[in-house]
Amino acid sequence: MTKENDENFDVVSAAMVVIGDEILSGRTRDTNAGHLASIMTAIGIDLKEVRFVSDNQDAIIEAVNQLRERNTYVFTSGGIGPTHDDITADAIAAAFGLPCDYDDQALKILAEHYKNRGIEFTESRKRMARMPEGAHHIDNPISKAPGFVVGNVHVMAGVPSIFQAMLDHVVHSLRTGRKLLSKSVLSDLGEGTIGAPLGEVQKNHPDTVIGSYPRYEDGNFSTELVVRSANEASLDSALEDIKIMLSKLQNA
Amino acid sequence: MTKENDENFDVVSAAMVVIGDEILSGRTRDTNAGHLASIMTAIGIDLKEVRFVSDNQDAIIEAVNQLRERNTYVFTSGGIGPTHDDITADAIAAAFGLPCDYDDQALKILAEHYKNRGIEFTESRKRMARMPEGAHHIDNPISKAPGFVVGNVHVMAGVPSIFQAMLDHVVHSLRTGRKLLSKSVLSDLGEGTIGAPLGEVQKNHPDTVIGSYPRYEDGNFSTELVVRSANEASLDSALEDIKIMLSKLQNA
Repeated sequence: MTKENDENFDVVSAAMVVIGDEILSGRTRDTNAGHLASIMTAIGIDLKEVRFVSDNQDAIIEAVNQLRERNTYVFTSGGIGPTHDDITADAIAAAFGLPCDYDDQALKILAEHYKNRGIEFTESRKRMARMPEGAHHIDNPISKAPGFVVGNVHVMAGVPSIFQAMLDHVVHSLRTGRKLLSKSVLSDLGEGTIGAPLGEVQKNHPDTVIGSYPRYEDGNFSTELVVRSANEASLDSALEDIKIMLSKLQNA
Repeated sequence: MTKENDENFDVVSAAMVVIGDEILSGRTRDTNAGHLASIMTAIGIDLKEVRFVSDNQDAIIEAVNQLRERNTYVFTSGGIGPTHDDITADAIAAAFGLPCDYDDQALKILAEHYKNRGIEFTESRKRMARMPEGAHHIDNPISKAPGFVVGNVHVMAGVPSIFQAMLDHVVHSLRTGRKLLSKSVLSDLGEGTIGAPLGEVQKNHPDTVIGSYPRYEDGNFSTELVVRSANEASLDSALEDIKIMLSKLQNA
């Protein structure tokens, strides 16, 4: 069914479905497609097509079914949150003809997460544990509600920092044209401070993809800077420049 | 054929095809889809779907033909420049089963433009005058090479400032749910100076869509700021704030 195990299939290809009325209305600007595009290029996967569709079950099913048939991998972003218009899990299940139900492991993760934070685990929050039968989790280190993989379709969050963190987990499991290396450095500076100079570092290292992920743990904010490249020398050179940049900012 | 003249068709809908390998490789981040989304929402047209496709004739034809059949309007961006990978005009002609040839009026506009600038009007620049037989021009006030309309498909440039300027010309010809009003103000400040404070003005006036278009004429740079809204009071209030902002920047 998926092209993952087909030995004769030379080009590893991918497609993306960006799900959400807020994108099509212009209220939110999508940044996940551009991020996925950079990562796919870095690891030698050919991103063939991206579609933005609305929070409409038929639209999601049409896009996912057209794209999963002709690509090695499909990635989706959006529509896996707790509100009524988060219908991605149901739509993906319907696209595969599978039942969609509460996943025990996901319920456990979320129950513990909300208990630790003293937040009520409401019915709407429980919605985030629903997924197609037999789906595998994609870890969510930021807000815990997992994404999932079913067949060759990877279902991930729309919030960019969570989408990126989920993609980090997924990327190592993909069959790729080239191996992607990554190294990271943690800073207690905020993204607002790091943003502009980091953009300069990225410009000077076109052979790498540099990501910035805000984290919040035990009451403290921090930013993780991840450099990815197929080339170790390029990777180390960019990482060195990031360290110099951070040290300048710390002493400023 | 198009749904423009169908009196019984209540919802005015649109779709977009973003064309270009540079978008799917992550080298360039698309901003045209977000801009189109905001404009469509402001004028009451329902943007149903956006697709990013590569510089591949079959991919462009498939997307355009699927989307033009089920939407009132289709907008494309990209692939109408002078290089070998600019194949949008040919692909759109093929999608409609029309011949694609040099347009006399477009050749004349471009010949004059390059003559005035003392630039040779090469064969590759002449490519920009090619369009499907019977297509109508969309004016390009920035670099002159016109976009075109064929059936319900509007073919526009990928460079954001040109895409936006072309959309400004097109938008008044569209059948819409609401009438879009627009007013503009010209400034000799650059976008780098205007950008951040203009973002603040946009945030304070969610009922409007504010665009910024760099211009270069007779050796002088300037920036045109365009405010659009369905509501005249909202429009005037945003325009007033822009004027205050510009005056503060001029005196800074």
